[in-house]
Amino acid sequence: PCTGNTLSKIALGVCDNAVTACIITAEGAGIPIMVVPAMHLAMYKNPAVAEHLRLLKKRGFYVIEPRVTETKAKIAEREEIVAHVLRLLREQDLTHKRILVIGGASAEAVDEIRVLTNRSTGKMGVALAKTAFERGAEVELWLGWSKEKTPAYIKVKRFESVTDLLEMIKDVDIKRFDTFIVCAALANYIPRKYGGKIPSGKKSLTIEFEEAPSVIAAIKQKHPDAMVVAFKAEEKKNTLLEKATSFLKHNEVDILVANTLSSFGADESEIWIIDKEQRVHHVKGRKEELAESILSTITAEGKP
Amino acid sequence: PCTGNTLSKIALGVCDNAVTACIITAEGAGIPIMVVPAMHLAMYKNPAVAEHLRLLKKRGFYVIEPRVTETKAKIAEREEIVAHVLRLLREQDLTHKRILVIGGASAEAVDEIRVLTNRSTGKMGVALAKTAFERGAEVELWLGWSKEKTPAYIKVKRFESVTDLLEMIKDVDIKRFDTFIVCAALANYIPRKYGGKIPSGKKSLTIEFEEAPSVIAAIKQKHPDAMVVAFKAEEKKNTLLEKATSFLKHNEVDILVANTLSSFGADESEIWIIDKEQRVHHVKGRKEELAESILSTITAEGKP
Repeated sequence: PCTGNTLSKIALGVCDNAVTACIITAEGAGIPIMVVPAMHLAMYKNPAVAEHLRLLKKRGFYVIEPRVTETKAKIAEREEIVAHVLRLLREQDLTHKRILVIGGASAEAVDEIRVLTNRSTGKMGVALAKTAFERGAEVELWLGWSKEKTPAYIKVKRFESVTDLLEMIKDVDIKRFDTFIVCAALANYIPRKYGGKIPSGKKSLTIEFEEAPSVIAAIKQKHPDAMVVAFKAEEKKNTLLEKATSFLKHNEVDILVANTLSSFGADESEIWIIDKEQRVHHVKGRKEELAESILSTITAEGKP
Repeated sequence: PCTGNTLSKIALGVCDNAVTACIITAEGAGIPIMVVPAMHLAMYKNPAVAEHLRLLKKRGFYVIEPRVTETKAKIAEREEIVAHVLRLLREQDLTHKRILVIGGASAEAVDEIRVLTNRSTGKMGVALAKTAFERGAEVELWLGWSKEKTPAYIKVKRFESVTDLLEMIKDVDIKRFDTFIVCAALANYIPRKYGGKIPSGKKSLTIEFEEAPSVIAAIKQKHPDAMVVAFKAEEKKNTLLEKATSFLKHNEVDILVANTLSSFGADESEIWIIDKEQRVHHVKGRKEELAESILSTITAEGKP
């Protein structure tokens, strides 16, 4: 935690203790310095302190903003600090990318209380957003039904149904993103919603579904130059590659990530990353490791 | 935290500091004492310490067992200690009850990845289990699809579908419970499951459902004397009481809790508790407050 006192000392070149002495040397030597302020809100708002913070930012210090509550400017969450340190230390191969990750399960209302959803947890979407952030990208995450904890340092919007998602694509300037990773398990079929609650006590029930509109098509229509990474889950390993390649050919997708159904809800899984030249890259591991491989393929694809 | 040292001192009547002096007096005065041990596992397993713990239990001390990990006997979680303190201090009007709470949403597989579920969170089930524990009951919780944190001090089993639940009722000796609170939002209809994954790209889709077997009937068949508290969600307030009373008459249910659909997923809600004599008790509030009212109705019902 960097107190108001230390902040001011650093800004003014005072180096009367181990910390400030260390920092004045590091800054002079051109070593990146990250500052994580934590103090009472009144101190944080003090004009001198505020001015010193502004000065440090100008001098190239990385500042992780505090979480401002009623009377306190609390230190950022540990996870956020770690993510920023990683972003500072890792190779920044995605700095020029503005990525929207769409993850989690969609849930389609069948009646007022019932929903049709799927076993996707949203882990893949969160892992992709975090890893892309660490590698320097500007990231936003749109997350469906998911219990995953979302990172405080990434802008997150929530959606429930495919219709919600299409509305969001329509309403927002999606041209501010250049890359779209659609790993959400989205409904292929939307139920004709029953008004109210389906009564109990009937011997049988039939629910009619209509084909869901394509989210990728909606993105491509509004933003034809977008790079799109899509996911496709297949039942059987032996037909997976064939079906995935055919999907890639017939849809405006740049990279397709194919997986088997066993990945749903699991921490470890296995994917096949297929690019436009139909090169296949097979990866196994935790969702964080898969995220790394997927992002590396995006970087490679972007190059001439 | 009660160290091995303090534990042994209490057991042996040594009272050479404020804590042990306080306890020797309290025990002599017949005041209930709760001990929450925390020490290295090696100390906890020391024969003298173990013997002293046994002795204290015999003398009527309430002991909250530590969480034993590799080398440590860690202090119980704060929430567990609070629950035990409440159980010690509150009126123990459910001491004689052995309650099974069935809560959360059921999820029915439509294919290998899709599920039909509902907006129920499981909050009501967890609140009922906790409150019944505090009021002295022996409690077990069977919880469906739910993100709620389950209490470590209550035995919890998980289920997914109505079929799972029926299997559990069949396999377990449910006669060890005398009261069943079925607040789970269970599927009324079970889809005829598609083998594998429903393919995408079709213009429309129809899913056929069969009526789900009654969980309450399954309980009653195996345990005809059981007291059963059922929940019924209705769409409209004005027909809710009429429908609930008719349900109570035609099913072997002792207490029916009726609510409107707005309770789904909410922290605050509104219920109508209806007993066999069709007395209606209307309550509004947080799920914990509703749980108190429901449990009070159970206690009242049990009395001649």
